[in-house]
Amino acid sequence: MQLGMIGLGKMGGNMKLRLEQAGHQVVGYDRNPDASDVGSLAELVDSLETPRAVWVMVPAGEPTRSTVAELGGLLSEGDIVIDGGNSRFTDDEVNAKLLAESGIGYVDAGVSGGVWGIKEGYALMVGGAAADVERLMPIFNVLKPEGEFGFVHAGGVGAGHYAKMVHNGIEYAMMQSYAEGYELLEASEYVDNVPEVFKSWRSGTVIRSWLLDLLDRALDEDPELAKIKGYVEDSGEGRWTVEEAIRLRVAAPAITESLFARFVSRQDDSPAMKAVAALRNQFGGHAVKPE
Amino acid sequence: MQLGMIGLGKMGGNMKLRLEQAGHQVVGYDRNPDASDVGSLAELVDSLETPRAVWVMVPAGEPTRSTVAELGGLLSEGDIVIDGGNSRFTDDEVNAKLLAESGIGYVDAGVSGGVWGIKEGYALMVGGAAADVERLMPIFNVLKPEGEFGFVHAGGVGAGHYAKMVHNGIEYAMMQSYAEGYELLEASEYVDNVPEVFKSWRSGTVIRSWLLDLLDRALDEDPELAKIKGYVEDSGEGRWTVEEAIRLRVAAPAITESLFARFVSRQDDSPAMKAVAALRNQFGGHAVKPE
Amino acid sequence: MQLGMIGLGKMGGNMKLRLEQAGHQVVGYDRNPDASDVGSLAELVDSLETPRAVWVMVPAGEPTRSTVAELGGLLSEGDIVIDGGNSRFTDDEVNAKLLAESGIGYVDAGVSGGVWGIKEGYALMVGGAAADVERLMPIFNVLKPEGEFGFVHAGGVGAGHYAKMVHNGIEYAMMQSYAEGYELLEASEYVDNVPEVFKSWRSGTVIRSWLLDLLDRALDEDPELAKIKGYVEDSGEGRWTVEEAIRLRVAAPAITESLFARFVSRQDDSPAMKAVAALRNQFGGHAVKPE
Amino acid sequence: MQLGMIGLGKMGGNMKLRLEQAGHQVVGYDRNPDASDVGSLAELVDSLETPRAVWVMVPAGEPTRSTVAELGGLLSEGDIVIDGGNSRFTDDEVNAKLLAESGIGYVDAGVSGGVWGIKEGYALMVGGAAADVERLMPIFNVLKPEGEFGFVHAGGVGAGHYAKMVHNGIEYAMMQSYAEGYELLEASEYVDNVPEVFKSWRSGTVIRSWLLDLLDRALDEDPELAKIKGYVEDSGEGRWTVEEAIRLRVAAPAITESLFARFVSRQDDSPAMKAVAALRNQFGGHAVKPE
Repeated sequence: MQLGMIGLGKMGGNMKLRLEQAGHQVVGYDRNPDASDVGSLAELVDSLETPRAVWVMVPAGEPTRSTVAELGGLLSEGDIVIDGGNSRFTDDEVNAKLLAESGIGYVDAGVSGGVWGIKEGYALMVGGAAADVERLMPIFNVLKPEGEFGFVHAGGVGAGHYAKMVHNGIEYAMMQSYAEGYELLEASEYVDNVPEVFKSWRSGTVIRSWLLDLLDRALDEDPELAKIKGYVEDSGEGRWTVEEAIRLRVAAPAITESLFARFVSRQDDSPAMKAVAALRNQFGGHAVKPE
Repeated sequence: MQLGMIGLGKMGGNMKLRLEQAGHQVVGYDRNPDASDVGSLAELVDSLETPRAVWVMVPAGEPTRSTVAELGGLLSEGDIVIDGGNSRFTDDEVNAKLLAESGIGYVDAGVSGGVWGIKEGYALMVGGAAADVERLMPIFNVLKPEGEFGFVHAGGVGAGHYAKMVHNGIEYAMMQSYAEGYELLEASEYVDNVPEVFKSWRSGTVIRSWLLDLLDRALDEDPELAKIKGYVEDSGEGRWTVEEAIRLRVAAPAITESLFARFVSRQDDSPAMKAVAALRNQFGGHAVKPE
Repeated sequence: MQLGMIGLGKMGGNMKLRLEQAGHQVVGYDRNPDASDVGSLAELVDSLETPRAVWVMVPAGEPTRSTVAELGGLLSEGDIVIDGGNSRFTDDEVNAKLLAESGIGYVDAGVSGGVWGIKEGYALMVGGAAADVERLMPIFNVLKPEGEFGFVHAGGVGAGHYAKMVHNGIEYAMMQSYAEGYELLEASEYVDNVPEVFKSWRSGTVIRSWLLDLLDRALDEDPELAKIKGYVEDSGEGRWTVEEAIRLRVAAPAITESLFARFVSRQDDSPAMKAVAALRNQFGGHAVKPE
Repeated sequence: MQLGMIGLGKMGGNMKLRLEQAGHQVVGYDRNPDASDVGSLAELVDSLETPRAVWVMVPAGEPTRSTVAELGGLLSEGDIVIDGGNSRFTDDEVNAKLLAESGIGYVDAGVSGGVWGIKEGYALMVGGAAADVERLMPIFNVLKPEGEFGFVHAGGVGAGHYAKMVHNGIEYAMMQSYAEGYELLEASEYVDNVPEVFKSWRSGTVIRSWLLDLLDRALDEDPELAKIKGYVEDSGEGRWTVEEAIRLRVAAPAITESLFARFVSRQDDSPAMKAVAALRNQFGGHAVKPE
């Protein structure tokens, strides 16, 4: 079937390729004219037969919201917009409502797979009306990995991004799990060859996983991670997961501590630890380390 | 080759079978005479040709220590004892020293695989002298899973149990990661079908893993986990991992919080929370819930 | 000076008394006619001379917002509204903007002191324009505790509630600190008389505090806290503090874990721990506890 | 009464002074001859009338253990040794048993008060036999702060150090509580004058405490803590408290996270965060920060 794809970066561009290799016709638009099939969103919309389906794959937040709003003015009743970016699930209801005013459907799709997706497929978690999701299945079926897993219609509008958000929260905590184990083994005098231990864990253990495979790969390339600084960014999903934990009164210590560890990793100096050092100096006369 | 196997429970019995299926000759001893090939440790030792190898697969702590001590009196110079149980790594040095007095070698083997090991193989993390490990490779090669992974000679005596301990620490935190995601999805009004979401994650996602496969399996059997109480035991390895984090000054929040969550899961009422409730009542007049 | 006081519950009623004892004239309004000096907000406004000052002391959220909105229609240019409730700091900007349309000033006041405030004074953290705060100082000076501490003009509109929110976040973590110590001492075989230990800590120690005095008081009344269930509510401030930690990328593990402990204290069973129990059963054949 | 005092550093020296000011006769020994009243432990023992009481105030661990052992050879039946240092509670049983062989009593005393103790008194938590503690009350009564608090006989041998250990665990978490609040206020755009907020909290609030007084003092001296690095040491008690939490299966997240925050504060780079950065690069192509 036909699909419009807006945003042809690392993710959108590869998804377009995967869809085209399967015989779908994808018209792509990107702000970068060299990467774009058409010169404008209007041109993209004009180039698709109705009922249209347009996949938005641009940064979350304002860029996605404004793109959806612009599409609301260009598309017609019966068309569908898919937000495949990393939007907060609360944006979905706003977007869906806006489009519904023009009779345009809205589906949110959480997409996992990163740089590996073009080859192995993209795991898809989608939210929206059953009829809309049904209509898009030819697209989803090509994007998703082969086999029985990798796709779920998780619920109404917002459910796709919600499931993806929780996926990323789990991802944060799993990465932290391996990372703590790594630091412990590195610190200990008992184990001689830490990368070999991680490699061995890839089979037969309870903790085998794709992330473990990747960590082994990273250690093959740089056995002491000597070229990498312990500085870790975080994206919205991890923070939103903790916000949801607070809203829903769900204890989520492993996910939250994983996020906090990233915050600390980006600090040159910690105001909190300055305060503790100051207190120890006050009551015990303990020396402080000068800045 | 020949092997003596002491302890023929769920783990030891299955490992014996896997070894025998591969053509090794295993003489088994168990306190339960019905399960045992021989009537005593002495008889087991007598039935093996020198240099002997005897695998101890009994509960960690006193049972393992006393078995090793008894073997020290029965075996001869050049024999090897393997402790395949869940001993604390600090026991290994004691055991090794004791046996070394009689010229007997000692290898510690951390074993992962649980009820799945007989079919899929047991991941092995071993510690000991290179020559001892080398001699036992025919045994290890059969126990381990097929392929290039699943075995590591992690270092000297103790390194095997140490690596297995950290493996289990990571395991605790990974289980907690999925569990927090599960509770969030269950609590949220956005996602309709939580088990379907978990099932979909088995392919194409960043968080795919064997544990995820097992959680999907559990949810297939009991989609709301209605038959299972949220009561979780813990074994030594998780606690020892945190002790090591303290000893080595390594922050391990995800692992530690996973352990604490288990402690709390087993309490009928929390003295700490009683104290907080009492405090709130004192300063704010907030009602307390009577026992 | 004159003050209107809206909401004459535990807090508002006592604050009115403290102000009147100091010679201020307070006209009180409460939904409960028996407690109220006047029959309506309109009547309250009419009874005050301009420029008026009206203190709102009603539940945070909708009740406060709608009271402020109603006052916006009744008060005149040059009057001031003080929100002394537990509003989220983000409500303050909305309230202030609404009142500013009619030339009415707005000051937010975070109030600490609980049931002890009438006697010991109420600690006040206020936000707003300098001129507005200045005008209200006769009120603040009576409400606050004697001495040089207990009052701060923390910044512009919102700063008062913000400072109070962080105060409460710290309060959560301090209560958790004592509570963990209490549970440890209770669990240990080393210490015979836990309440005596807490009592002794009230003087000369690093951890002496008002909260410790209160805990000693609670233990005097009920040495084993046998009449109190370990069930702890939480109010908005603790949750908002964690939300702010997330927004500002500040690690706040002690505060956050204190909040999570309260969430767990209110659960009959934990879905997360069910998931962990299910996983242990799947890979290790470990028994689960049936519901 | 007479007392021998071994170790005349910051703590021991001040305690000697406080005792002498109250009329007790204290013979002090220190490795530094300039600070010492006598030339050796033997001389110190000889200078005291029987039954003697000797207070050991030297670093915990080997120094304390060897001093106690040496005293065991010098003292006589009916004498008492007090360990007032920061020994692990498990050392006390060993020390007591050793001395008991010669009929010498043993009392452990956890001491709080730091540099302020000489003036305000030292909070004392003691463990030991009732008769031994009773005999030493003239000493304890002078060292402790005035008033009804500041002394507890917490139980048998070890109980004093145990109570002091938990005191310090609570102290870690309380300091972390204030420190997190400090960092939040510093990071927020809502509050203009963070030191003023802390100062105001000293009266009327729920979180008023001696530690808060000290933090205010530190902020008076250096309002932005600009001269202090966020680098925090930890002593044994915090680590032992967490070890006890593990042993007793007590969740202690606030105390433990406080300790972990200190560990991280002392790292130039975090191996765990290197591993997370490496993983993000592997699956998402996210840039890493080079070392």
